[in-house]
Amino acid sequence: MQKKLYTELNRSELEKEYNRVLALYQEFLQAGLQLDMSRGKPSPEQLDLASGMVDVVASTDSFIVENGTDVRNYGNLDGIDEAKRLFSELLEVPEENIAVCGNSTVNLIYDQISQAMSHGICNSTPWQKLEKVKFLCPVPGYDRHFAICEYFGIEMIPVPLYDDGPDMAIIKSLVESDENIKGIWCVPKYSNPTGITYSDAVVHAFASLKPRAKDFRIFWDYAYCVHDWYDERDELLNIFSTCKFYGNEDLVYIFTSTSKISLSGSGISAVAASSKNLADIKQRLQVQRLGFDRVNQLRHVRFFRNVEGIYAHMQKHRAIMAPKFDTVFSLLDQELKTRGIISYYKPKGGYFISVNTLDGCAKRVYQLCKEAGVTLTTPGAAFPYNRDEKDATLRLAPSYPSLAELKKAMELFCLCVRLATLEKLLEEKGYQLNQENPGEI
Amino acid sequence: MQKKLYTELNRSELEKEYNRVLALYQEFLQAGLQLDMSRGKPSPEQLDLASGMVDVVASTDSFIVENGTDVRNYGNLDGIDEAKRLFSELLEVPEENIAVCGNSTVNLIYDQISQAMSHGICNSTPWQKLEKVKFLCPVPGYDRHFAICEYFGIEMIPVPLYDDGPDMAIIKSLVESDENIKGIWCVPKYSNPTGITYSDAVVHAFASLKPRAKDFRIFWDYAYCVHDWYDERDELLNIFSTCKFYGNEDLVYIFTSTSKISLSGSGISAVAASSKNLADIKQRLQVQRLGFDRVNQLRHVRFFRNVEGIYAHMQKHRAIMAPKFDTVFSLLDQELKTRGIISYYKPKGGYFISVNTLDGCAKRVYQLCKEAGVTLTTPGAAFPYNRDEKDATLRLAPSYPSLAELKKAMELFCLCVRLATLEKLLEEKGYQLNQENPGEI
Repeated sequence: MQKKLYTELNRSELEKEYNRVLALYQEFLQAGLQLDMSRGKPSPEQLDLASGMVDVVASTDSFIVENGTDVRNYGNLDGIDEAKRLFSELLEVPEENIAVCGNSTVNLIYDQISQAMSHGICNSTPWQKLEKVKFLCPVPGYDRHFAICEYFGIEMIPVPLYDDGPDMAIIKSLVESDENIKGIWCVPKYSNPTGITYSDAVVHAFASLKPRAKDFRIFWDYAYCVHDWYDERDELLNIFSTCKFYGNEDLVYIFTSTSKISLSGSGISAVAASSKNLADIKQRLQVQRLGFDRVNQLRHVRFFRNVEGIYAHMQKHRAIMAPKFDTVFSLLDQELKTRGIISYYKPKGGYFISVNTLDGCAKRVYQLCKEAGVTLTTPGAAFPYNRDEKDATLRLAPSYPSLAELKKAMELFCLCVRLATLEKLLEEKGYQLNQENPGEI
Repeated sequence: MQKKLYTELNRSELEKEYNRVLALYQEFLQAGLQLDMSRGKPSPEQLDLASGMVDVVASTDSFIVENGTDVRNYGNLDGIDEAKRLFSELLEVPEENIAVCGNSTVNLIYDQISQAMSHGICNSTPWQKLEKVKFLCPVPGYDRHFAICEYFGIEMIPVPLYDDGPDMAIIKSLVESDENIKGIWCVPKYSNPTGITYSDAVVHAFASLKPRAKDFRIFWDYAYCVHDWYDERDELLNIFSTCKFYGNEDLVYIFTSTSKISLSGSGISAVAASSKNLADIKQRLQVQRLGFDRVNQLRHVRFFRNVEGIYAHMQKHRAIMAPKFDTVFSLLDQELKTRGIISYYKPKGGYFISVNTLDGCAKRVYQLCKEAGVTLTTPGAAFPYNRDEKDATLRLAPSYPSLAELKKAMELFCLCVRLATLEKLLEEKGYQLNQENPGEI
């Protein structure tokens, strides 16, 4: 049944609808939900899929790896060969361009920025010595990237993100003219939070950039490389070989990890980069530590064996994630899109769905959900300095709750969006609402 | 049999002795040894002791820890409670003053320095903005500490290290007068490389320092806290409670790890610090990562259970390490001390023995060993900027080779010290030696 567009309701219809929705919302207030949809955490069922990983290196097994060293001891600063090969297959980047690291890509990225601040990149002036350092931030984007910039005092410049990637005309013009622009944050496949994937044209535009700053780098956070939930899946062009094609191989750092493939807290991460960039990274690594946890690297190699093992494993994740994404899509469509009060992109994979409400509604939706026991990502989190000027973007992270819980949480979310929108529309028509206590009109 | 002191030999005796030792050395050159005594790596037998650790968290076990969270997922930024308790018992520091981290103390220490450079310590001026930052370095000391200073451009000031700790009069006078002095490196028990332990008086002197710089910190690298190889063992006074006693609890960071207790590459580390210092560290951690590998923390807790479990485990290490230390001591005593050509301290635990040759002999000993197939730690490594002005200190790391190999390597080492010393003494008597080819006199 086609629902009436909220924007077409007159004042009396809005009032009636408001009272109806409010009554439903109040039922939720009674129900005492306790759910967290704020972060992209895998569910226990997803973690169960990879629990066997802790069994594949037993004390009775050999700890000696291909290069003859014992993984229990210190050594192999940039990872064991077997793990490099696994990531090489996954990223389609030569083994010699890969370093395999610890359990956190965020840490890898943080360290890279920290090194650039204190030591520059490939012998450039340390960023801390520059008057100003700027990063481009396609928005909405990943709050942890922005937090790193903020921590190091790097100025963030938002750039619009479309369904095929960020606005490359703006990026090209800024990067090629402003020497202070030293980097850009990219989550190129199933982007956090909108779920879009960069088109081939966008990847070509990135790879052929001629940055004004020699130490400009693309931070390619390839977090969701194999996180496809549908038959029709997004294909991302290989940035590494495309950069090489343009003679631009030092332009990009590619980061990835198994955090959302194996165990979130106990995965392994990798960085892929040109020989020159990798040598630069290793100069830090050899001061910073004696090696990463190679026993855990060996676990991953033994558990997955090769990239086909990873693909097969991701089919199991898909079986859990696809119904959750479907649930979100179907409720958003039925309850909100038909009423003309949201827009959103339907991702084919990844961990997030980003919902655009009418301007000025996001914070209110967050608050209404919170009061009824469902925690969403803080509104504004997807924007530099937490500034969502339109107050219109909300990130949904459907992975953690069970399907039944998710359905409940999404029903509440939809009610809250309706309620916040109705409040907004009624206010615009001069109606005075008591937002502190929505029951008292 | 009392051997003749080399310094009492006349020229003809020296010549005879030289030819005798040279002949023995040449036999070693033929033998084709291939041994590494350069780093403090545990032997395979020591790693075997803790291999069972990889079995104690199996997929059929629970992954839920005390606070109700699943260790396979993200969370517990500063470690699981159980692991905090284990380190609390080990360090005798309250649980709330402990953060449990990843597999590397060097990384923890590096991060702390890096944070101080970029953000200061507890809101002090970031060190990178200061004209000069200096660290005190008791020498000989740990090369990786010095490498971190060098990497960040921190000026290193050597301070003499005695058998009961560093020269506290010099330290007090420098720290309490110079605002640029921001830290000091300490390996307070079984010091790397001399194996000495700080006396109670030294710990009191540290804990009662009144540094000119508010952001001065003692970097207390308590790497060998339970690494006692003999019945008579060194006891180190608790710096944390002693600092507290003097109202100085923000003065120290205590670092430790299980790297030389469990598996070197796959241990867990911890930092103990005052609430104020810990809050400062967590401000970085929450930007830097989502958490450390908590499954591995759980492995350690299940494997050791409590600090008694660690003590019992260290007895097994002792059974392997004591004979190695004894072998080194007995050969050094028989072959070199009796000839009056070295001095050294006999550590009761830890991983190293530091030998003082006659001035100007250390590099030559290294070279002679190297040519015969035994790698020692690079001479000078125990000094800031690799500067051993006297060229007289060599670090021995007896843990990795088997007992038989170690005996062979030490026999060679002793020969090389004798040869280098004889060359030196003969040169002083005007004798021309062809060092390129020691056979041709």
